[in-house]
Amino acid sequence: MDATHRALCEYGYANLTMRRISDELGKSKSLLHYHYDGKEELLVSFLEHLLDEFDRTVSTEGHGSGEETLRFTVEALLSDADCHTDFDTAMLEMGMQAPYNDDFRDQFRTNDARLKDLLSHIVADGVERGEFEEIDPERAAEHLLILLDGARGRSVVLGTDAPNDVGRAAIRDFIGRITVGGDGE
Amino acid sequence: MDATHRALCEYGYANLTMRRISDELGKSKSLLHYHYDGKEELLVSFLEHLLDEFDRTVSTEGHGSGEETLRFTVEALLSDADCHTDFDTAMLEMGMQAPYNDDFRDQFRTNDARLKDLLSHIVADGVERGEFEEIDPERAAEHLLILLDGARGRSVVLGTDAPNDVGRAAIRDFIGRITVGGDGE
Repeated sequence: MDATHRALCEYGYANLTMRRISDELGKSKSLLHYHYDGKEELLVSFLEHLLDEFDRTVSTEGHGSGEETLRFTVEALLSDADCHTDFDTAMLEMGMQAPYNDDFRDQFRTNDARLKDLLSHIVADGVERGEFEEIDPERAAEHLLILLDGARGRSVVLGTDAPNDVGRAAIRDFIGRITVGGDGE
Repeated sequence: MDATHRALCEYGYANLTMRRISDELGKSKSLLHYHYDGKEELLVSFLEHLLDEFDRTVSTEGHGSGEETLRFTVEALLSDADCHTDFDTAMLEMGMQAPYNDDFRDQFRTNDARLKDLLSHIVADGVERGEFEEIDPERAAEHLLILLDGARGRSVVLGTDAPNDVGRAAIRDFIGRITVGGDGE
């Protein structure tokens, strides 16, 4: 999965091949084919892997305020240490296959549903503790997911220098707005 | 341009050809080639045309409150009467070419800058008239653009049945939040 990540960063989705992934892995292509029928099956597993990794990252987080937990979680979704923009581009190219590939679409939906569930829970807990305003947790989660996807898409299409900074500002702004006594700007 | 729109809806970006556009137009392919070097040059003109069309739509709008004007403008950006999802998919596929095609990128940036400018002005006017809270108009405009792009992208990747409804709800929510005495949910 790490080799797939590196290969995606380097070659993007369109130019990714089983050969290139196995080269990154330092193993034979036949070994890869033993486990996966092809690039698409491997990439569906890769999407699952990303979700697992994300689950691990956020589950190690201590229990701060709702605002802190939300910020930490969103940050975990935004940051990609090594090859930021190229990886976002590759992920978006993969997403563009979803209308033509049911396995991709299903996995993207699964990942999205899990994220929505996690964010909804954080918001619901915060509302219960009086940290967030009386908002609909699902709608707040959806708002955050739309902002995350929008920020990523815009950084790819418009190619801004600091891809996620504007997106981060919008997300920070939104979290501030829903926080009781928070700073809306 | 109308023929290009129809052909994009029908064939998407990848399968669009000069032949298919000229068939939609009911003219010869050579006439099209007389005006445009190829599909990409034609599509850059098409993006310009979309911006002009949008300018015309919003300039006919009467001068309601800031909130009304903002809602009308966003609605004009969201709705595409004929071939909603397919057109959004084609536009996103075109956007995905931007990292590899400077002409596309420049035109996407031009369109985005114009929209940002328009939305900023609407917000700034509303702030001045005391209709909107004391927010940074540029940041509010950026927030709306991120939501618009995020909603479109998600409808393509996740293939929701009512593509823009969730996006509309998030945008309505945001406009409500920045409106003095508005309804944040």
